[in-house]
Amino acid sequence: MTELNIIQLGLGKVGQELLRQVAALWEQDRATHLNYIGLADSSGLLLDTNGFYLDDLHDALAVKTANGRLDQAAIGDIDGPIVTNQLISLLRAARIKATIVDLTADTANLPLLAAARAAGHDLVFANKAPLAVDYASYCAIAPTLPSEDAPTGWGRVRHEATVGAGLPVISTLENVLASGDQIKRIEASVSGTLGYICAALDQGLSFSAALRRAHDLGYTEPDPRDDLNGIDAARKALILARRMGLPMELSQVGVDSLIPAGLESTSLDEFWAKLPQVDETYRVKLDAAQKRGNVLRHVALIEDERASVGLREVAADSPLGRLRGSDSIFIWHTVRYSNSPLIVQGPGAGPQVTAAGVLADILGLG
Amino acid sequence: MTELNIIQLGLGKVGQELLRQVAALWEQDRATHLNYIGLADSSGLLLDTNGFYLDDLHDALAVKTANGRLDQAAIGDIDGPIVTNQLISLLRAARIKATIVDLTADTANLPLLAAARAAGHDLVFANKAPLAVDYASYCAIAPTLPSEDAPTGWGRVRHEATVGAGLPVISTLENVLASGDQIKRIEASVSGTLGYICAALDQGLSFSAALRRAHDLGYTEPDPRDDLNGIDAARKALILARRMGLPMELSQVGVDSLIPAGLESTSLDEFWAKLPQVDETYRVKLDAAQKRGNVLRHVALIEDERASVGLREVAADSPLGRLRGSDSIFIWHTVRYSNSPLIVQGPGAGPQVTAAGVLADILGLG
Repeated sequence: MTELNIIQLGLGKVGQELLRQVAALWEQDRATHLNYIGLADSSGLLLDTNGFYLDDLHDALAVKTANGRLDQAAIGDIDGPIVTNQLISLLRAARIKATIVDLTADTANLPLLAAARAAGHDLVFANKAPLAVDYASYCAIAPTLPSEDAPTGWGRVRHEATVGAGLPVISTLENVLASGDQIKRIEASVSGTLGYICAALDQGLSFSAALRRAHDLGYTEPDPRDDLNGIDAARKALILARRMGLPMELSQVGVDSLIPAGLESTSLDEFWAKLPQVDETYRVKLDAAQKRGNVLRHVALIEDERASVGLREVAADSPLGRLRGSDSIFIWHTVRYSNSPLIVQGPGAGPQVTAAGVLADILGLG
Repeated sequence: MTELNIIQLGLGKVGQELLRQVAALWEQDRATHLNYIGLADSSGLLLDTNGFYLDDLHDALAVKTANGRLDQAAIGDIDGPIVTNQLISLLRAARIKATIVDLTADTANLPLLAAARAAGHDLVFANKAPLAVDYASYCAIAPTLPSEDAPTGWGRVRHEATVGAGLPVISTLENVLASGDQIKRIEASVSGTLGYICAALDQGLSFSAALRRAHDLGYTEPDPRDDLNGIDAARKALILARRMGLPMELSQVGVDSLIPAGLESTSLDEFWAKLPQVDETYRVKLDAAQKRGNVLRHVALIEDERASVGLREVAADSPLGRLRGSDSIFIWHTVRYSNSPLIVQGPGAGPQVTAAGVLADILGLG
C-alpha cells in the first residue's frame, strides 16, 4: 500500500476522535501506512516531515485536552501559523505528497487547500464550509468522479463525512454516476436535529417541547436557531447537487427557515419563552397531514436541477415517514433504481461516525 | 488515472450489460482509462494486448447475441481456450498488469484467478462461487481490508456485486472494519426471490401462489427449488462472514431449506402440482406470527461467529418486517452504530445494477 502523509487541520471533537481511531489501529499494528506529518488547530501547525510516533499522537491529545490548544505539545520540528506558500514549498523540497484533512468548520484554509490540490496533494474533508462557498471558488477543490479526468497533476478529493458522516452517501453518489447511471431525484432527511423534532411531533409532543428535548439531549447547536434556520441542511443539499453536476450557489437552494417570525434575533431567553406561540400552528398542520395519512418531515429534495430543504408532508407509510429518532436517510431514484429506490439510513452525525467516515476516505486513498 | 487493462471472463446477461455500460461511457468520452484487452466465454478467450476499440465491444456483443458464443467474433490477436500459465506468461512478457473480472457462475477459473493474483494482477468478482469454496482455497483470492497488508506483490480484490449487486454492501463492511469499528450483528434479507415470497404471504397469498407469481415475474431460477434450498443466500452470508474475519466453511452456515419434504428431487411438474400441500402450514405459521405483531421473513443472520439463513419471525414494524417486493436489506449493528443501525436497502439483483456494481469496483481500482 502507498504510504500516506497526513496533515490534519482541526483538533475539535472530530479531530480528537480521528487521532484516537488512528492510534487504536496503530496499537493493533494496522494502518501502518498512515504517516502523520502535521497537526494543526487555530493555535498553529506542528510539522514533522519524518512523521509522528504513536506517543506523539497521545501527547497531542493530552495537551489539547488539558490546554484547549495544541501549540504547547512538544512534537514536530516546526511550529507556527500555517503559511500556504511556505508549507507547499516545504513539501515540495521534501518530495512529500501529502493528504490534507480538513476537520475545521470554516473556510480559512481554502487558499491553502486549493494551492495544495493544484500542487498534487490529496484533500479529505469533513468540513462542509469549503464545499459550500461560491461556485467559482469551489471549482478549485471540486472532486471528480472515478470516470472523469481531473486536471493533470491535481490531487484527489474525498468528502464522505460532509454529508451523513460515516454513512455511504458520497461514495454511493459517485458510484451511481461513474457507472453511467442518471439520478432522477434525491430525497433525504439530512438534519438529525430537525428529523428528531419531526418524529417527536408524530409522537404527540408540541413543537416547543420537541425542540427542548432535542436541546436537552445535545442534538442541537447551543442556539437552536442555528439548526432551525436550515442552513446546515441546505449546505448538504448543495454539496449533493454540485456532485450531481449542477453549478449551483447556496443562495439558489430553497430554504424554509423554521425559526418563528419575530424570533430570529431576540435573546435566547426570549426565544425559548415565546416559542410555544407556534405550537398550535404545528399542531393544526400535523393534524391536517395525519387526516391524509401523512406526517411532517424535514426533507432535502434535489430534482429537475433544483434543490430545496424544508418541512414537507410525506406519507406516514413511506421510508421518510417511518424515520424515527435522529437518524438520517438518503433515497436515490435513478434510471437503474427506478422501480424501487436505493436507500441508505442511519445515524448521520456525531464525532465517532464522522471520524470513521474521514478515516475510510483516507484509507481509500492508500 | 492509472490505465486499467481489463480481461472479462463471462459474457452472460451481466457480462453483456457491463460491455454496454462501458461502451456507453466511452461514447461520452468517459472512463477512457479502461482498456479492454480480453473477453472470454466458455467458447474461449479473445485477447488483444493493445486493447479493443469501441467497435470491437459492439462486434463482440453482436456475435454473442447472434450465435450464443463469442469465438467467431473477428477481434483479438489470440483466441482459444484459457490456459493459465500461458496467459500469465504472456501478460508478464507484455509487462501488463491486468484487472481480471469474473462474471461466470462457477469455479472453473479459480486456478487462473489465484495465479493471476499472486502475480500482481487485480481481481473483480460478481461471481460468488469462487468466494464460497473451501476456506483454504478461498485464501488465495481473499480480499484484504484497506487497513491490512496483502502479501507483497499480490493484486487487489474487489467483489461488491457478489452481495446485493450494486448496493454499497461490501464497501460498507470494509469501511466499518478498516476504521476500527466492530460488527456485532448483521441482519439481512439477501434473496430477492425469497424476500418477495415472504412479503407476498403478508398480502394474503398462499405459499404456492406467491412462488408461482415470483416465477412468472422472472424472479426465480427456472427450477425454483434452486432458490428455495437457500444455498444462494447461504453463499452470500458466508461471503459476509468471511469478510468479518471468520474462517468459516459453507457447510457451517445454518440453512433451512424451504423445499417441502419429499419434493426435493421430483420432476418439476410434480413439484408444482404438490406444492399447495404446504400452503396450510405457512398460513398457520403466519397467523401465529401476526397475532404476536410479527411477520415471516427470510433472514440471513451473522452474530457471535455464527451464520445462518432461514425463515424467521420478525416484528412487522421493523426494517426487515417492512420490506416489500424483491428488495434486499442489510442492517449493520456495530459498536459505533449501536443505538441505531446502519441500513442499506434496495434492489439487490438484476443485470443492470450488478454490472454497475462491477463497474464501480473496476473504476475504484484506477
